[in-house]
Amino acid sequence: MEKVNIKEKLSLHDDHYVPRIVGELNGQYVKVVKFLGPFVWHHHENEDEMFLVIRGTLRMELRDRVIDLAPGEFLIVPRGVEHRPVAEEEAHVVLFEPASTLNTGDTRNEKTLEQLERI
Amino acid sequence: MEKVNIKEKLSLHDDHYVPRIVGELNGQYVKVVKFLGPFVWHHHENEDEMFLVIRGTLRMELRDRVIDLAPGEFLIVPRGVEHRPVAEEEAHVVLFEPASTLNTGDTRNEKTLEQLERI
Repeated sequence: MEKVNIKEKLSLHDDHYVPRIVGELNGQYVKVVKFLGPFVWHHHENEDEMFLVIRGTLRMELRDRVIDLAPGEFLIVPRGVEHRPVAEEEAHVVLFEPASTLNTGDTRNEKTLEQLERI
Repeated sequence: MEKVNIKEKLSLHDDHYVPRIVGELNGQYVKVVKFLGPFVWHHHENEDEMFLVIRGTLRMELRDRVIDLAPGEFLIVPRGVEHRPVAEEEAHVVLFEPASTLNTGDTRNEKTLEQLERI
């Protein structure tokens, strides 16, 4: 049992859209990730997903609207809801989601990551 | 689907050791709570519990050691592990835990809250 400093974990890697696991509880993972630019439209069939912004601004595009998240704000995207994260400038984000969650959800492409690193 | 500003939610109430629900996903609750003073020793039989500090310092007493958490740091206390949160000055905290989690775990006393408010 070790405490985790979120900003310290975020300082370890500079790549984008590569979530890394920093905690696990009750079958859920806590991940850190840096976003830059648009991701892909996708949804998760069986997983709700939480995005907590640590630094920068994250724009969550939904099919019917857009929600802008500042540091200290979070959004829970329910299962089945199509979404596309977009960061015009680099955004640092904590994700909470089930261990089974695939980053690109129902969409598989070159951004899909089957295995995530633990840091 | 609405975004949540954590500090705004924490500004709504001034009481201590009264967690309130600010989000729900995958059978887990996201809660905000203010800690001041020592809580009670307890453990959760079937739930891992995550404490993320937003403001102030939270001291987590375990039977064999103490872990101090500053803002931006979190600790996951696994199920079965006895713990006692202590805040010498007021600490603002986000909790992430299964919906079934009782605040005082296996210990029931005047601090036990059976029903939590959603804000």
